[in-house]
Amino acid sequence: MGSIRSKLVVVGVGHVGSQVLNCAASLKLFSEIVAIDKIESKAKGEALDISHFTSSDYINNVNIRSGGYEECKDADIIIISAGPSIMPNKDIKKLDRLALASQNVPVMKEIISSITKYTKDAVIIIITNPLDVMVYYAQNFFGYSKNKIFGTGTSLDSARFKRIIADKYNVDPKSVQGYMMGEHGNSAFPAWSLLRIAGISYDDLDKYFNPKEHLDCDNVASEVVEVAYSVLNMKGYTNSGIAMAACRLAEAVLLNERTILPVSSTLEGEYGLRDVALSIPTIIGKNGIEKRIQVPLSDDEINKLKESAESVLKTIKSVGLEK
Amino acid sequence: MGSIRSKLVVVGVGHVGSQVLNCAASLKLFSEIVAIDKIESKAKGEALDISHFTSSDYINNVNIRSGGYEECKDADIIIISAGPSIMPNKDIKKLDRLALASQNVPVMKEIISSITKYTKDAVIIIITNPLDVMVYYAQNFFGYSKNKIFGTGTSLDSARFKRIIADKYNVDPKSVQGYMMGEHGNSAFPAWSLLRIAGISYDDLDKYFNPKEHLDCDNVASEVVEVAYSVLNMKGYTNSGIAMAACRLAEAVLLNERTILPVSSTLEGEYGLRDVALSIPTIIGKNGIEKRIQVPLSDDEINKLKESAESVLKTIKSVGLEK
Amino acid sequence: MGSIRSKLVVVGVGHVGSQVLNCAASLKLFSEIVAIDKIESKAKGEALDISHFTSSDYINNVNIRSGGYEECKDADIIIISAGPSIMPNKDIKKLDRLALASQNVPVMKEIISSITKYTKDAVIIIITNPLDVMVYYAQNFFGYSKNKIFGTGTSLDSARFKRIIADKYNVDPKSVQGYMMGEHGNSAFPAWSLLRIAGISYDDLDKYFNPKEHLDCDNVASEVVEVAYSVLNMKGYTNSGIAMAACRLAEAVLLNERTILPVSSTLEGEYGLRDVALSIPTIIGKNGIEKRIQVPLSDDEINKLKESAESVLKTIKSVGLEK
Amino acid sequence: MGSIRSKLVVVGVGHVGSQVLNCAASLKLFSEIVAIDKIESKAKGEALDISHFTSSDYINNVNIRSGGYEECKDADIIIISAGPSIMPNKDIKKLDRLALASQNVPVMKEIISSITKYTKDAVIIIITNPLDVMVYYAQNFFGYSKNKIFGTGTSLDSARFKRIIADKYNVDPKSVQGYMMGEHGNSAFPAWSLLRIAGISYDDLDKYFNPKEHLDCDNVASEVVEVAYSVLNMKGYTNSGIAMAACRLAEAVLLNERTILPVSSTLEGEYGLRDVALSIPTIIGKNGIEKRIQVPLSDDEINKLKESAESVLKTIKSVGLEK
Repeated sequence: MGSIRSKLVVVGVGHVGSQVLNCAASLKLFSEIVAIDKIESKAKGEALDISHFTSSDYINNVNIRSGGYEECKDADIIIISAGPSIMPNKDIKKLDRLALASQNVPVMKEIISSITKYTKDAVIIIITNPLDVMVYYAQNFFGYSKNKIFGTGTSLDSARFKRIIADKYNVDPKSVQGYMMGEHGNSAFPAWSLLRIAGISYDDLDKYFNPKEHLDCDNVASEVVEVAYSVLNMKGYTNSGIAMAACRLAEAVLLNERTILPVSSTLEGEYGLRDVALSIPTIIGKNGIEKRIQVPLSDDEINKLKESAESVLKTIKSVGLEK
Repeated sequence: MGSIRSKLVVVGVGHVGSQVLNCAASLKLFSEIVAIDKIESKAKGEALDISHFTSSDYINNVNIRSGGYEECKDADIIIISAGPSIMPNKDIKKLDRLALASQNVPVMKEIISSITKYTKDAVIIIITNPLDVMVYYAQNFFGYSKNKIFGTGTSLDSARFKRIIADKYNVDPKSVQGYMMGEHGNSAFPAWSLLRIAGISYDDLDKYFNPKEHLDCDNVASEVVEVAYSVLNMKGYTNSGIAMAACRLAEAVLLNERTILPVSSTLEGEYGLRDVALSIPTIIGKNGIEKRIQVPLSDDEINKLKESAESVLKTIKSVGLEK
Repeated sequence: MGSIRSKLVVVGVGHVGSQVLNCAASLKLFSEIVAIDKIESKAKGEALDISHFTSSDYINNVNIRSGGYEECKDADIIIISAGPSIMPNKDIKKLDRLALASQNVPVMKEIISSITKYTKDAVIIIITNPLDVMVYYAQNFFGYSKNKIFGTGTSLDSARFKRIIADKYNVDPKSVQGYMMGEHGNSAFPAWSLLRIAGISYDDLDKYFNPKEHLDCDNVASEVVEVAYSVLNMKGYTNSGIAMAACRLAEAVLLNERTILPVSSTLEGEYGLRDVALSIPTIIGKNGIEKRIQVPLSDDEINKLKESAESVLKTIKSVGLEK
Repeated sequence: MGSIRSKLVVVGVGHVGSQVLNCAASLKLFSEIVAIDKIESKAKGEALDISHFTSSDYINNVNIRSGGYEECKDADIIIISAGPSIMPNKDIKKLDRLALASQNVPVMKEIISSITKYTKDAVIIIITNPLDVMVYYAQNFFGYSKNKIFGTGTSLDSARFKRIIADKYNVDPKSVQGYMMGEHGNSAFPAWSLLRIAGISYDDLDKYFNPKEHLDCDNVASEVVEVAYSVLNMKGYTNSGIAMAACRLAEAVLLNERTILPVSSTLEGEYGLRDVALSIPTIIGKNGIEKRIQVPLSDDEINKLKESAESVLKTIKSVGLEK
């Protein structure tokens, strides 16, 4: 039945949220986009600026505006990019994730509480860090359908991984199938056993594609994690990659694509893990999470996943969120 | 509230309908497309063929299939391209529109009756000829919301008009604002008084754009009408232009764009006309027809519109459809 | 250096070629498209019809027209879809490929000879059947750079394969990595050992995705081949899938994407084969074929590839083309 | 002839330039994008961040990287967004444009001198403010083909104008034809005589579209100028609208669209003006400026254009650039 239009709400329009707005407005997929920010003028400024590009020839007539949580009422998708983020500093990898979690739990509490006053139907995509902790909290403490909440998770880490692999072998990343799994951030790891280019597995890639230099597993794994900090240090924040990751997920939901992307959600026994959120390949469709796939992993990879789960769990506990 | 997905049903998949399917499947706008045809195998073949291109990198995972009218139940848009069409022949402009109308009235009756068993919500876009007669019939005899039914009308004639004008002056047709109005077909006419390129009106175009040769009003008017017959004679049918016209309208509805396009609907007093369907500029949005605009016309143009109305009315009467 | 524009020439605008024109015109990638056909009025009619949809809001101002081979002079891409095609009939799989080859060799001779009078730079994509024979002929007898000529090959068969697999497991075909290899047509085979969904191989798919019914290798293999005949019998020809396959290849070339797609070209020792054209995964970029990848295959698959090579070679010899 | 690929260089990747990179990378039009900035790490960070979104399903495999001016050698388009910008402050409209001009003339000198070492072929699109002064300088003092340099000019102001008009009358801005002309910034003015919605002129809009409130010419004129300052004050900078304006122009060039857009270039007698740069509707195609159109204006509008020219000329003279 024809509820003909599609509406996106973006909560929090700092560097990341404003980029989500820009990206979403150019998708030719939404008829309405609403920016919510606690600094109302910021939300208004972003919406106004982007509204000016909707006059352009190839852009659909999106109604883009700022507003309050009541706008969630008939939203199809809500993307949450609010809350303080990781800031560049000298010793960036040692940043206090616990402190960030402590700061952002009340932020998330206010946001999800405000959203649930108006809707139980929208699919909610979380970007706020520490991502997996925020997802765990949002999925488990507000009575919202679990399948309708997930986090961008390692979909961004995977995009980085695929780009790095594609560059090493000089092929289109669309021809690379591969996933970073686990926590979004430091303990994420490449699932090497799943990586394929044209059906060729990690062990054989050098043989078939003649890269300039041998692909070193460990180097790539740390490169994927560290490139985030490189971007952070070089431009002061990261936003382009993550905004596209979130928009790609929104597309998959809106178009009911059933695309497999690694997103963060609370596990329910996969790999023996539960009560912790992290990213594994997941079918994304109109209901949000359609199915988490417990992909076959090597023992080493399962260990890394469990270590990653531990890392997330530790922060969950530290901020008093374990059930 | 999130009925997240968009569904198109195309009724009649001959040359035109199959092209509508192809065009729609590449829009990255629909998650489901269903082809209905009285020759089931034809519908199935078209859906199957197009489904193979949905594996391509840049195409969304559209579920494209053939089916019956029950598929209209949750359709957002229904495009009707069924019924015999105009065939090329020696004396093509003298073709018996009455005969065609007689043939297609029962076709339309069966289709609209079948659709209305399942939905009163979808926006229905009609392509079947004689277009204005079919639109008049569909809008007025089945109790369906009038604003939710319209015909492609002179949106195709206008595309031709804009292309011809753009070519004469060597500019992008997106920089041309102009409309063919009236009946879709022989009595359509260019509303010269509305034509603008960069705000410049017909009288001044030659001065500002230095075309190779003077733009002759009468020649262009007949060129627009005759180019349809040229295509018909040269390739045996017309389908590309009309399919795009229908898909553009579907986009404007789905994205609630409120784009002004000339479509066919039953007038309700505009220019003193009622109980006849023809095309005037119309705001197209989520409800289908949002508003018909009685644009200011010259006396000569109003006369042409009335002549055009006469022509449509004559066929309406001949097939016994006047109220 | 800025030769800013991109030009496509399509030779042969029957069912397939006209669909290529439609598809290409909507890509927002070409500034000029030229249709060439021995029946000039057909080419003109198709170009004219499609030109009318270029007035639409979201379509770029493509200059689409009919013309002669002199238009190849500054073409970036030339797609050849000329020549009689396979016709539906009762005993369709027994169709005389030799007869078709005999018919189309002189057609190809005339076309390639005509093209090479005007350019040695364009990338030429062949669709004409029997595909691999035509590719072999075009690559080896006209002194054109071999890397700049290839055939759509099993890129279409692979699209069908991926669609079928994606449907069985209810996932986005973009999440499926898989290839049909060998001859385009009857002896094409799925390279099961390369198939992956989210890194999961054929053997494990049923376990992870719970399909309605078990995936039977042999059934799928024949389904991929037979679906072509189904489409042929149901709609009288196939054109949508193949047109998209050709356009996807054109995109990969124009955007220098280095995408891996299975296309047909003359092997040069891969799998011990040479002097025969068939499809294996190939990196497609600005130079056309950037690199054929001799992907690792099982013994059984290598045998099938060799049988497929035999089948192509037999026709090559029958029409007197072996070197 | 196949120089198959398209390359964009963006010089200066602050708020505006980085947004241009994001926007351009999603156009599916460029195969290479290079970011140049005097702060190399900033350019590198932006390129790296955006490169991560090129792994996404619907994005082409763009090679996006940072580099030096030697990258201009084979660029098709160069967009210049370098130099300090207008900063928000209390008395923002009184900002010292002369001071900004003084600062940015040497910036532009270095940039254009560096570019011209490597190319005379690329089309150069300038965004740096004060825009018209920068365009005048770049076009007239470096021996570069004048048609190959232009500024975004009032294409942004016009996008704002069209958005405002479209919102007042609740229609798609794509159905609005209208232009802001003159200086980009304070003295820009709406060419009311050229404004049309569905062929309807300013005087009649209220009658035909029933807006909530009467459209006041003067209010709209100042709203268009002041909305820039609103955005500036609300978000600290403007970048979304201007980035899209620049990318739209790049598209029109690359696809040789011959779209009419108001861009800034040195007039050569139009309206009796010369030796000053400002924006009038201009045909944009593969050669950059294909033709400036001296659109018919009312006496009042001509006066405003001349006042605007005076304003630009004054700054040109103040920084010692008059010839």
